[in-house]
Amino acid sequence: MARYGPMYGADITFLGVDRCDVTDPGTFAAADVVILGAPFDGGTVNRPGARFGPSAIRQACYLPHDGSRPSLALRVDALADLRVLDAGDVECYSGDVEGSIAAIEEAVRRIAASGAVPIVLGGDHTIALPDARGVARVRGMGRVSMIHFDAHADTGNVAFGHLYGHGQPMRRLIESGAVRGDRFLQIGLRGYWPGPETLRWMAERDMRSYEMTEIGARGLGECLTEAFGIALDECEGVFLSVDIDVCDPAAAPGTGTPEPGGLSARGLLDSVRRICYELPVVGMDLVEVAPPYDQAGITAALGNRVVLEALSAMARRRRDASGHPPWDPRQPLLDGR
Amino acid sequence: MARYGPMYGADITFLGVDRCDVTDPGTFAAADVVILGAPFDGGTVNRPGARFGPSAIRQACYLPHDGSRPSLALRVDALADLRVLDAGDVECYSGDVEGSIAAIEEAVRRIAASGAVPIVLGGDHTIALPDARGVARVRGMGRVSMIHFDAHADTGNVAFGHLYGHGQPMRRLIESGAVRGDRFLQIGLRGYWPGPETLRWMAERDMRSYEMTEIGARGLGECLTEAFGIALDECEGVFLSVDIDVCDPAAAPGTGTPEPGGLSARGLLDSVRRICYELPVVGMDLVEVAPPYDQAGITAALGNRVVLEALSAMARRRRDASGHPPWDPRQPLLDGR
Amino acid sequence: MARYGPMYGADITFLGVDRCDVTDPGTFAAADVVILGAPFDGGTVNRPGARFGPSAIRQACYLPHDGSRPSLALRVDALADLRVLDAGDVECYSGDVEGSIAAIEEAVRRIAASGAVPIVLGGDHTIALPDARGVARVRGMGRVSMIHFDAHADTGNVAFGHLYGHGQPMRRLIESGAVRGDRFLQIGLRGYWPGPETLRWMAERDMRSYEMTEIGARGLGECLTEAFGIALDECEGVFLSVDIDVCDPAAAPGTGTPEPGGLSARGLLDSVRRICYELPVVGMDLVEVAPPYDQAGITAALGNRVVLEALSAMARRRRDASGHPPWDPRQPLLDGR
Amino acid sequence: MARYGPMYGADITFLGVDRCDVTDPGTFAAADVVILGAPFDGGTVNRPGARFGPSAIRQACYLPHDGSRPSLALRVDALADLRVLDAGDVECYSGDVEGSIAAIEEAVRRIAASGAVPIVLGGDHTIALPDARGVARVRGMGRVSMIHFDAHADTGNVAFGHLYGHGQPMRRLIESGAVRGDRFLQIGLRGYWPGPETLRWMAERDMRSYEMTEIGARGLGECLTEAFGIALDECEGVFLSVDIDVCDPAAAPGTGTPEPGGLSARGLLDSVRRICYELPVVGMDLVEVAPPYDQAGITAALGNRVVLEALSAMARRRRDASGHPPWDPRQPLLDGR
Amino acid sequence: MARYGPMYGADITFLGVDRCDVTDPGTFAAADVVILGAPFDGGTVNRPGARFGPSAIRQACYLPHDGSRPSLALRVDALADLRVLDAGDVECYSGDVEGSIAAIEEAVRRIAASGAVPIVLGGDHTIALPDARGVARVRGMGRVSMIHFDAHADTGNVAFGHLYGHGQPMRRLIESGAVRGDRFLQIGLRGYWPGPETLRWMAERDMRSYEMTEIGARGLGECLTEAFGIALDECEGVFLSVDIDVCDPAAAPGTGTPEPGGLSARGLLDSVRRICYELPVVGMDLVEVAPPYDQAGITAALGNRVVLEALSAMARRRRDASGHPPWDPRQPLLDGR
Amino acid sequence: MARYGPMYGADITFLGVDRCDVTDPGTFAAADVVILGAPFDGGTVNRPGARFGPSAIRQACYLPHDGSRPSLALRVDALADLRVLDAGDVECYSGDVEGSIAAIEEAVRRIAASGAVPIVLGGDHTIALPDARGVARVRGMGRVSMIHFDAHADTGNVAFGHLYGHGQPMRRLIESGAVRGDRFLQIGLRGYWPGPETLRWMAERDMRSYEMTEIGARGLGECLTEAFGIALDECEGVFLSVDIDVCDPAAAPGTGTPEPGGLSARGLLDSVRRICYELPVVGMDLVEVAPPYDQAGITAALGNRVVLEALSAMARRRRDASGHPPWDPRQPLLDGR
Repeated sequence: MARYGPMYGADITFLGVDRCDVTDPGTFAAADVVILGAPFDGGTVNRPGARFGPSAIRQACYLPHDGSRPSLALRVDALADLRVLDAGDVECYSGDVEGSIAAIEEAVRRIAASGAVPIVLGGDHTIALPDARGVARVRGMGRVSMIHFDAHADTGNVAFGHLYGHGQPMRRLIESGAVRGDRFLQIGLRGYWPGPETLRWMAERDMRSYEMTEIGARGLGECLTEAFGIALDECEGVFLSVDIDVCDPAAAPGTGTPEPGGLSARGLLDSVRRICYELPVVGMDLVEVAPPYDQAGITAALGNRVVLEALSAMARRRRDASGHPPWDPRQPLLDGR
Repeated sequence: MARYGPMYGADITFLGVDRCDVTDPGTFAAADVVILGAPFDGGTVNRPGARFGPSAIRQACYLPHDGSRPSLALRVDALADLRVLDAGDVECYSGDVEGSIAAIEEAVRRIAASGAVPIVLGGDHTIALPDARGVARVRGMGRVSMIHFDAHADTGNVAFGHLYGHGQPMRRLIESGAVRGDRFLQIGLRGYWPGPETLRWMAERDMRSYEMTEIGARGLGECLTEAFGIALDECEGVFLSVDIDVCDPAAAPGTGTPEPGGLSARGLLDSVRRICYELPVVGMDLVEVAPPYDQAGITAALGNRVVLEALSAMARRRRDASGHPPWDPRQPLLDGR
Repeated sequence: MARYGPMYGADITFLGVDRCDVTDPGTFAAADVVILGAPFDGGTVNRPGARFGPSAIRQACYLPHDGSRPSLALRVDALADLRVLDAGDVECYSGDVEGSIAAIEEAVRRIAASGAVPIVLGGDHTIALPDARGVARVRGMGRVSMIHFDAHADTGNVAFGHLYGHGQPMRRLIESGAVRGDRFLQIGLRGYWPGPETLRWMAERDMRSYEMTEIGARGLGECLTEAFGIALDECEGVFLSVDIDVCDPAAAPGTGTPEPGGLSARGLLDSVRRICYELPVVGMDLVEVAPPYDQAGITAALGNRVVLEALSAMARRRRDASGHPPWDPRQPLLDGR
Repeated sequence: MARYGPMYGADITFLGVDRCDVTDPGTFAAADVVILGAPFDGGTVNRPGARFGPSAIRQACYLPHDGSRPSLALRVDALADLRVLDAGDVECYSGDVEGSIAAIEEAVRRIAASGAVPIVLGGDHTIALPDARGVARVRGMGRVSMIHFDAHADTGNVAFGHLYGHGQPMRRLIESGAVRGDRFLQIGLRGYWPGPETLRWMAERDMRSYEMTEIGARGLGECLTEAFGIALDECEGVFLSVDIDVCDPAAAPGTGTPEPGGLSARGLLDSVRRICYELPVVGMDLVEVAPPYDQAGITAALGNRVVLEALSAMARRRRDASGHPPWDPRQPLLDGR
Repeated sequence: MARYGPMYGADITFLGVDRCDVTDPGTFAAADVVILGAPFDGGTVNRPGARFGPSAIRQACYLPHDGSRPSLALRVDALADLRVLDAGDVECYSGDVEGSIAAIEEAVRRIAASGAVPIVLGGDHTIALPDARGVARVRGMGRVSMIHFDAHADTGNVAFGHLYGHGQPMRRLIESGAVRGDRFLQIGLRGYWPGPETLRWMAERDMRSYEMTEIGARGLGECLTEAFGIALDECEGVFLSVDIDVCDPAAAPGTGTPEPGGLSARGLLDSVRRICYELPVVGMDLVEVAPPYDQAGITAALGNRVVLEALSAMARRRRDASGHPPWDPRQPLLDGR
Repeated sequence: MARYGPMYGADITFLGVDRCDVTDPGTFAAADVVILGAPFDGGTVNRPGARFGPSAIRQACYLPHDGSRPSLALRVDALADLRVLDAGDVECYSGDVEGSIAAIEEAVRRIAASGAVPIVLGGDHTIALPDARGVARVRGMGRVSMIHFDAHADTGNVAFGHLYGHGQPMRRLIESGAVRGDRFLQIGLRGYWPGPETLRWMAERDMRSYEMTEIGARGLGECLTEAFGIALDECEGVFLSVDIDVCDPAAAPGTGTPEPGGLSARGLLDSVRRICYELPVVGMDLVEVAPPYDQAGITAALGNRVVLEALSAMARRRRDASGHPPWDPRQPLLDGR
């Protein structure tokens, strides 16, 4: 498997970070994080276009593509404080879901095996299967919990006669043993899917799914805190899977299956920050950014910021782990500069 | 009056429910809800396009058009639990406001006379006059209260030299005796219209209008609860009229007269849910979805979900009326499945 | 294989013609033409979205969807004069190119076997393989010539490691023996693909490809006349494959791989008219209409008109075959009415 | 009837020309041309939005709005050489087609009565009835011939149960005696409307309609020359009615009922130039520019240029009438400057 | 300097208020507020287009442009209760940042010298330098505090080798002494700019910047109250500078450098209301509305409403200063009408 | 001056060709062509956005960015047959027109001094001044003729009080002696600018401008042939300046000042081909591609193809100069492969 570069457009990296080659472990031996594109959207049951997600997310920033992004809020520069590399895109043909899954999983596994955290840019949510399983193959099957932001449970069984697609990855993950059902935490579900049979399947696996009604009634912060407790029980690491459609279509119109009534962009960014600051995240993906349906690039920009927020919080987590005073969200911006 | 089918596009039904014919009462004798399109936008004083609302709202869903929509939040499948039919569109020529009003009112009256709840998909807000009056002619003039979500009061007297248009239906409703002014509840008003004279007219009729400032200061939930108390006083039923522009333009750009500073999509969906769960809704319309101004169909999707939310809450209300434990918004999604 | 209805949206038919069921030959026994949707875009190497082509092409008309379309130019009403049915969409999952090809080919074969002309609405150009081969299986392998409108030769060998995709169908068709290379006529090629090796392969098969430069220098009419002579030599029928990107992006922006410098819409419509009037067309497809990239629906409208033009010319051809005076493009519209 | 100003937006004039008041004839006593907005789109059977046509056409220019536009081709500055005024918009409520027609007709009649040429900016094509009849009331019923550019014949009888709308104005004009059927010249028709019965009605009135096929076969120039001969027979003046959809959707996407296969923008501009230079045009309208469906304002820009081309040719016609050498399209731009 | 009128489009005024001429003080001698357009976007480091901001903001309203806007919330009609004039646009060439700054500053100074409050419509944020300095030259250098809504601090030093641009105005303002660093209040900052060096410069000037994290943790209301206390200490007036990108891209997609995670439209409107009601605002600008990136005009509409909210609150502040009972946000809309 | 990379976006090269550094002549010593971005749009008097032209034009291709583009029509692979390098973007601040001109001119001069042909991607047409003058400084002032495709003459004198901008470069070029007025050939002019005074200035310099009317009457081919004769008289080389707005807005909506009635994309491509095949082109620019106004990237795609067409024709010209049989536009594509 050769480095393919972004399949859909010019060969660029996430905001200008250095390149690595996923087939040559030496090129990312010292990396903390390796970004990987998975431009696959053959698994979408409705609007495609997420194949352009990796390219759009990498570029969606008005600042120079110089490999530096000092976070105002977290007081770290993740692209400088961590060693973040970009391995380009996995070659994945949208007309071949199984071949694409295999190729992505192998690439993710190699990155995880190096000790780096893979951050996979989708692509549709089909890729959560190889993303999380690739990490679990290294960290231990069933030893990585899942925190999953999404409007949809993605626990379908069969669609269009196929086991693999963007509505089924979470079921396949649990069935494969990669992630335990009772360590599977879903945030932001809403709407009219799936039906009772699938919900029963989920309940039987002891999944914990926070629908927007519960989040509205209890508060997002309280739900997250509860989920964090579950996530770390008997697991050493967390995989964070963010479907951009967890946000309200107002904030993320550029996606395949928008469902009204979701999180604000602020809510998602704050949640991702807490997760990557408070928990040991060992893998992540960001999926379903579909540029053909975007307006003025705002969905791609949000995707870019979700990744940066995660990186910044990981950097701050590392810093504070070495004795630095913990992060205080109430500290004024210019205090202590 | 023959079934006309969606005037603007192919002949489809709301998410695939069965058809009925408004001129043949036998076809909807057993219906709980009959959906009706009113593709009229001749009453808009600014941006037209709402004539494409019925077609867009009926289709705006990425799930199969199979006549089934199990609500995650409410644990009912409204399209299965209720008998919901779609009567197609009233033939209404946008160049003839008075003829269109008459045709819509007659169609709504027939539906209401069958005992079914008419849900009318606009079209511009002109149609609230025939929608609510058509229901009142059956339920009793002055016996149905109104809950009206909108950025605008729609209580103007004359526009462009005409009594009928999308800025005047609420005045005509009160003047006609269909709805009592002191049972008229408005939620979400804001901006710079109408002026003092019209506001005085409204005050003199004892209307109760919640401007966004009051809603922000007191909370939407408290305002709704207060409004519910008024609505049921001496009235047996409630007509719910939702102008999509009650939402902030971020969530509903596809509308004719967007006014910044409105509700979130979440806020509107939760409100509609409470109304249709807690109150005896006997008619509803959803208006001012204007597809030419939409982005990626998010406004049409919101409109679709407002209708589904209403249907789901009606279904749950009916179920709980027969002794089922009441709905608890804090119940985890998978609890008890 | 059950009727699936348009996979992406409501279950409608082409401009309101009657339905048939491809799994039940009796439903289309008497049909002259059967329209079939193939909403597959997993074979695109760049912009997807053509999966929404069938739905968009079927609806893209401002006239009533009443199953009647009298052609001003040809003085026939194809939807009335021919028996045109719509079989809905083949279920084809974009993540499975080989399964989709098989399903499409079987459906096309059944239609052709009934004696009807299949008109397949794509989807990406991958489907030309099953479309033309499905017809050839009935009419005789190598007995159907191909007239292929496209900016691209679509004779690639392997892409993304796969033999099947929207850049390779014409090679597979020739290799399979379905269509002879020396009865393969391409109109409208231009740009920078394919390279010399593929062009040599094409030359060795005696294909005849009209690049836009030759068309500009000689005139489209002369090129077509020359091509018609080749098409009918030792072949009994013609398959017409129209990639909408044969038109200039000005006329067809809503497509996956737009190449500047193409035909005008008028040029394409006139060509399709001549082909279906002068030649025995036994199958047709129209591909690569990608609604997410369209503006005001003009590409879908063009696609709709290409189909209607073909149908109208077939109807006129049939009428004139029974002794009616031949069609005269110089006849005034109202002359002889 | 008071000056209303542009109903849809700020009160501006066509490219900055001076204002006049249609209710006060003294304000336009010396005018050569008076521009009038008719922002009515209640007569559209499909996409509305043409109500914003007058505002868009008036503004669609990147040059200063300074009341000067020297034509490179015709070597006149129509806005300076002619006295062109702008009377603002007629107040016409889209929900009242009959009232709007009456108001427009009266305004046009007043302008024509002053001796000025009215140029009416639509709005949908409904307004051709009051536009041309208003002129005929002054110039003589049946004494003004019509040259009508359009994809559609607009000779329908009844639509949505109404006699008036954008598909019927030409029939009403002939029925009313305002324009003789045998002095009615239509350029650019195509597509699938109207049907045989209406075409027979047209033929019986001896209308002369040039469908795009005839135009393609004979050439636009030859068809125009032939039409000019008919137009001046027993008529003293010509009314020019331009529906922007006569152009191909590539050039005019921003319109309500786009029909592929039309004229290029160049073809329309050249035709309008010839008509206004070679014939005594006594009235004009430009209709069906629908900004909500436009891209980058190109359709509105085309509409603006159609008006300027007409004005420039009128100015040149007047100049050459006083002995100036006739216009030569082959003269180099800088020759004789 | 002559009145130039809106450089980019027709010569209109804000919602139809009367004109004045900034070169003739007599024309605005009695004005309370003078609106001024500064259509400059040469200072943008990314997406331009804000040059069309003044024209868009002036027009972005569906109500008649009649110089009246009665605020539902504040019970005043600012355009009637205050004398608001529009001086048109300063001629500022985007290719000449320094010349443009000089021209804007002189125009603002003249307005401020008359005692009127200048409200400058941008244009990019470069103009905050001449806007606030023009006011300070009249009110006293260092005597006017700044409340600055923005996603970005705009305190850069040099960009593209230049001192002037839309990332540096706040630094230049402090350096010039126009505004004291310790009276500089920033609301809504977030993201990844500027870096530590610039933040240190800001801290050394005792600026007070509220990043979104602090606002989220403490509440916007509390932050504003704290800021108000600082603003009035040793300053007699406040300059309010609103960069529309302080709002989340969901609410303001039409801007040059959108940063996810910002305020809602409601939050911004409420803040502007409080500032203009509770504080003595002596100047204001609204910048970075970039129409080419807008959707359905929602960003321009928000900009229009920010200006109206400011005007309405100023009008109410004046009324209440003369003994009227203070504004109560909990008062029902129709109470006391 | 350091290599800056594409100022607006990621650091990429034209379709993947190799990089060079304009400050280090050794890096492009052997180049035939050097591509240079000039992302300046501060000179636009109307719609900006052309600063994103270089980035868009470099990427606007659906084929792999692999540095190979075999031309079907010309049978060369320009990116392989010529040594084409990309020097990235000149740092040019849109707020500083004079500084930007100086920086561009120096970069172009360096490239020309190496013997390579500079191809400059704009940016607005302001850059034609430094582009052509930079070449003339090397080739000889007055020794390079100009062929200029444009809707506008760009010979204005002063705009917004400035000598430099996108409406004046051609005047400055002639005044500076870089290009002789009588060797200045303009193709495609039309519309309403400039006025008589400027036209007289042009006539006095013996410029030769082909307005669209003359082109329509005589044919584009004949006009080009005539122009070629003039171009080579006493000049050794030709500078080709292509403003994309020479095309009709249908083909190039993404531009700042669209003027209806222009060339088709095919017409422009054929013209560029002839110029670069028949004439010794020593420099070129392509300007006014404004992505914010584009639809589906069709204008950027056209820009990309204009550059490739020029490169391909240059490569073919070189090949045929060494004895290869001349190019024959009537040769069938597969003939001789």
